Amino acid sequence: MAGFVDKLKPVEPSGSAIIARERAQSDISVDGLSQTLFAGDNYLHRQARILPILTAEPLFDKKQQANLSRPDLFKLALARAKLLRRLKDQHGWDIDDYKLAELLVDDVSPYYLHLHMFVTTIREQASDEQQAHFMPLINAFKIIGAYAQTELGHGSNWNGTLGRTANYAIVVAQLLLPRPGVNAEDEPEYVSQGPHLFVVQVRDLKTHQPLEGVVVGDIGPKYGYATIDNAYMLFDNFRIPHSALLSRYAKVDPETGIYSKPAIPAVVYGTMTYVRSLIVHQSRMGLARAVTIAVRYTSIRRQFKDRDSKDGAERAVLDYPTVQVRVLPLLAATYALHYTGLAMQRIYKDARKEIEGGNFSPLASMHSMSSGLKSFCTNLVADGIETCRRALGGHGYGGASGFTRLYPDYLSRVTVEGDNWMITQQVASYLIKRMGEAAAQSTGADPSHLEIFNALNGRSHLQPCDILKSDVQVVEAFRRRASFLKPWTSLIIQLNKVSHAQSVAMVVEFFHESLSSHEHLSTTTQTALQNLYRLFAYYQMETEGNDFVRSHAISQDQLNALSGRIQELMTLIRPHAVKLVDSWMIPDYLLDSALGRYDGQLYEDLFHRAHRLNPLNKITFNPNYWEDEIVKGSGEGWSSILAKL
Amino acid sequence: MAGFVDKLKPVEPSGSAIIARERAQSDISVDGLSQTLFAGDNYLHRQARILPILTAEPLFDKKQQANLSRPDLFKLALARAKLLRRLKDQHGWDIDDYKLAELLVDDVSPYYLHLHMFVTTIREQASDEQQAHFMPLINAFKIIGAYAQTELGHGSNWNGTLGRTANYAIVVAQLLLPRPGVNAEDEPEYVSQGPHLFVVQVRDLKTHQPLEGVVVGDIGPKYGYATIDNAYMLFDNFRIPHSALLSRYAKVDPETGIYSKPAIPAVVYGTMTYVRSLIVHQSRMGLARAVTIAVRYTSIRRQFKDRDSKDGAERAVLDYPTVQVRVLPLLAATYALHYTGLAMQRIYKDARKEIEGGNFSPLASMHSMSSGLKSFCTNLVADGIETCRRALGGHGYGGASGFTRLYPDYLSRVTVEGDNWMITQQVASYLIKRMGEAAAQSTGADPSHLEIFNALNGRSHLQPCDILKSDVQVVEAFRRRASFLKPWTSLIIQLNKVSHAQSVAMVVEFFHESLSSHEHLSTTTQTALQNLYRLFAYYQMETEGNDFVRSHAISQDQLNALSGRIQELMTLIRPHAVKLVDSWMIPDYLLDSALGRYDGQLYEDLFHRAHRLNPLNKITFNPNYWEDEIVKGSGEGWSSILAKL
Repeated sequence: MAGFVDKLKPVEPSGSAIIARERAQSDISVDGLSQTLFAGDNYLHRQARILPILTAEPLFDKKQQANLSRPDLFKLALARAKLLRRLKDQHGWDIDDYKLAELLVDDVSPYYLHLHMFVTTIREQASDEQQAHFMPLINAFKIIGAYAQTELGHGSNWNGTLGRTANYAIVVAQLLLPRPGVNAEDEPEYVSQGPHLFVVQVRDLKTHQPLEGVVVGDIGPKYGYATIDNAYMLFDNFRIPHSALLSRYAKVDPETGIYSKPAIPAVVYGTMTYVRSLIVHQSRMGLARAVTIAVRYTSIRRQFKDRDSKDGAERAVLDYPTVQVRVLPLLAATYALHYTGLAMQRIYKDARKEIEGGNFSPLASMHSMSSGLKSFCTNLVADGIETCRRALGGHGYGGASGFTRLYPDYLSRVTVEGDNWMITQQVASYLIKRMGEAAAQSTGADPSHLEIFNALNGRSHLQPCDILKSDVQVVEAFRRRASFLKPWTSLIIQLNKVSHAQSVAMVVEFFHESLSSHEHLSTTTQTALQNLYRLFAYYQMETEGNDFVRSHAISQDQLNALSGRIQELMTLIRPHAVKLVDSWMIPDYLLDSALGRYDGQLYEDLFHRAHRLNPLNKITFNPNYWEDEIVKGSGEGWSSILAKL
Repeated sequence: MAGFVDKLKPVEPSGSAIIARERAQSDISVDGLSQTLFAGDNYLHRQARILPILTAEPLFDKKQQANLSRPDLFKLALARAKLLRRLKDQHGWDIDDYKLAELLVDDVSPYYLHLHMFVTTIREQASDEQQAHFMPLINAFKIIGAYAQTELGHGSNWNGTLGRTANYAIVVAQLLLPRPGVNAEDEPEYVSQGPHLFVVQVRDLKTHQPLEGVVVGDIGPKYGYATIDNAYMLFDNFRIPHSALLSRYAKVDPETGIYSKPAIPAVVYGTMTYVRSLIVHQSRMGLARAVTIAVRYTSIRRQFKDRDSKDGAERAVLDYPTVQVRVLPLLAATYALHYTGLAMQRIYKDARKEIEGGNFSPLASMHSMSSGLKSFCTNLVADGIETCRRALGGHGYGGASGFTRLYPDYLSRVTVEGDNWMITQQVASYLIKRMGEAAAQSTGADPSHLEIFNALNGRSHLQPCDILKSDVQVVEAFRRRASFLKPWTSLIIQLNKVSHAQSVAMVVEFFHESLSSHEHLSTTTQTALQNLYRLFAYYQMETEGNDFVRSHAISQDQLNALSGRIQELMTLIRPHAVKLVDSWMIPDYLLDSALGRYDGQLYEDLFHRAHRLNPLNKITFNPNYWEDEIVKGSGEGWSSILAKL
């Protein structure tokens, strides 16, 4: 092609120059902030250690993967998964190293379920003897396990890792036992003990063919998640041994057939609580990727001249309030989600300790909290990613945006592990039950973040919270709105709102708590975080303003004032926006985005990807409809493409 | 595989039985309603005539397309486009037949821009001589044209059909002319006359190679739109003849160099108004596909037992208010969008007639109206499609949902032809300008749906509209909210709200107007349409309740009552839901959805697609990480997949 192309330069000021100016205008210390965010975790060191190992491997190169078919993407993902597992051996990575490497490569790995739901279920639900047998096999990947809970026509119906990869699965199934006392010679009558967990071999370890009586396969292309094999599975007269029943809590005596049930039946669903907490913890990263790209791109991208400017220069897109209002509240949300994720993990670990010690009482509140937050956080992130993508205009639709895999993959989260609408009804019923208990005792319950209940009546004389002057009153306003349950519970449709209100109140409270842990940071940084806190809370409040006013959490005047306050906060945050996303320390390799590059060379990269990397540009097509030929000069008609249908 | 698989039957009642019952319980006449909806258009006959021609062609089979790589999808799309064009010759299709066939095949065709923006621009902007030259070439596809308006760093930057297919393009570029009066021997000084339209050959008609001085290519994989070649293009000292300037309105005398400008400069953007009106008109179909799938699936799908039911049967998911509130307002929206699209097309045609007669005055209001409605309707549809998808739970994420191409393709609409946020500012400035004029004249403007202005002050004594009793008062409430501009215009961030309020007021009014055209339909049908109207309006109102109260359009009590009214309406609409989606007459071939099949055989189809059609299930993989082999028994390592990176 024409030689002038290689000499092209973007107009001045270049993206690199602009983003350098952006960084120079803020005195936030990115190192200081990111070390605070990731304190207590080796995340930053880990990432610095692992990243160069990954980028040195051609197999992890992402440049062409959007041009691959789904079958090829799956083959690639399996090859990558194998290589990652080898690197673990080679470099002595621990499990967190390995999971971070997986995250950076950004395939949902064919091994994913093995290292999450399968191993967690064995660890939490298997007896000591079962663990002694399975854990070494799991750790050495001598067996690969999946988790099969749903049935066609119920649940979400897709069991990852099981379609083509796994040879074992946790199977959740009804435990049927002969009715005791029936004469052994009679046809036994079976009684269901409810759903139990079984660990079941489903494929031959040598041939990798399904065992006799098992039909299993991949469900085909999906909205995203091309790299993982979600499965259907059928059993036909398939026998499993007594030892398949995971028997840490539920047991059947092999001699007498006597069944001992778990202390509480819900304990078998512990793995779902684990996964929901994990999803809450991970939600920050999905949104942080989107916001990093959006902030960097919109701070470089110029559009329309500033009438007040003398030089007639165009304004950065991020200087427009219409762009700020879409991107900056989401920047604030990344911080809110981060602290929520940390709190969720802490609470989960504490609860597990209790449960392992035989105290099952935290189960119900954990289940409610993880369900509510899973629903709230994943909705926020899924919608937030798309809001960021749209804020990039046409470029957000292009493959160089970094969104074309991020968004479809993330969308799985709103339905997986309990559909976001459905599970909020569980939260609401938990809250209503607790409220009933509290009312019965004629006493207010413990006002911790897990149990927020106010008096049910006589709210109309309440003074609105002083949200514009006091940060902690903001927390109170969210609590008050969340406790405004009574007029809602008559309508099932509103249960979603109850759960949402409860969850966002927690998120606000966790974010507020974190503010006191920043005292060692510079005043600028502390102020920026405080402004992010207010922006997050005010923005949520304004979005659902009417509910806050109706619940006497805030006054109509305060609600009317929010829009102006939000705009002021955005103006204060704007100069620090680039450094506030830099602090998430997301490497270019993970972003895989021309628009979100750290160095700002976006137009160079956009053109490079289109002009030099796109395989379609190596083909000359024949556009004449009266000629069969598709590829010019091939002389071939469309039979080869027809053969692929 | 095991023989029992072929004998599987879904549990009773089957999907077919359920959907038959759904249809039997409503006495709406689907034929009567659909003929009313598509009256004045041969749409239904056209579809009945064309569909069997398409489904008889193996090239139009959709079963495997989700398994193809992007380069293969493009080849397939070009082959399909050629075949469609041949079928046009063969069957004597007119242009509407051809476009309907394109829509049913559901590829965004590589020829798409040729038949839309290219031909429209020639028709509207070329002189009679230019048309005489180009129109026969265009109609015979002897040349293939595209439309190139944006520049890197400005606009949306992607020009369809140009990447690999087109040999011509409309190029929007600055017209520079020598400053008159400068001595011909001096170096001429150029003066820009602003952007003008040129028709430019960019590829050789024989070799299909770019002409010397042109660099052009496809931008690579995108979020959706895999089947069309969006382009980058560079010119380097590329000369075009005088005849390239489209000169219906703007002319340069080839002898004297004297420039005659168009009566109004905005006339060159007519094609954008055309495309925006087209997008408004087409928006109904995108949403109707999603709602058809969602209503059919959720009426069949069962989940959880009904406590009040004696037989312990599970309830249809669509019987839950939490599902209804997501799906049924969108069902109502399909009707609202349909009537809006019809009105928009009617107004566009009338305006074109005026413009062709030399009266350019409708241009500004057309531009504003088409921009505002494009933004409102495409946001509603894009978000509505995703809401429907999520209402399907895990199955909505699967490839058999019918959403995996629909949603990514539709998302292009929110940024293409003017980013939805950006263009609303044009609407708002138009409204503010008209408001200023109205105020200056000290007189209210014409209160037609294009120009809704009320007095600016003294609203606080207004009586709220009686929205719960009167349908036309609902229209008035939307108008009043839309005219509540003054406190907003100081804040640029609110301009989006102004435009949105104005557009939704129009949509409500168009829908309300249509109610009077249904008098020949049965009472049940008329009542159902009236309920859909109310549901659409009340739902929109409740979503932005605070603005309606603040603008004294409705009272707080009325707002509080809406949630109950919405639920009542949904209960009334529920029994007719299947027939109300049936009336859009969308064939299974277009839906391409196991979940949305007309006959209700969803589980049979889901399993068939997964078990029999998925090519991944023909491959046995080797899951052992210590072995290089990916495909079991191939003995091959990952070198072949690595070679594709």
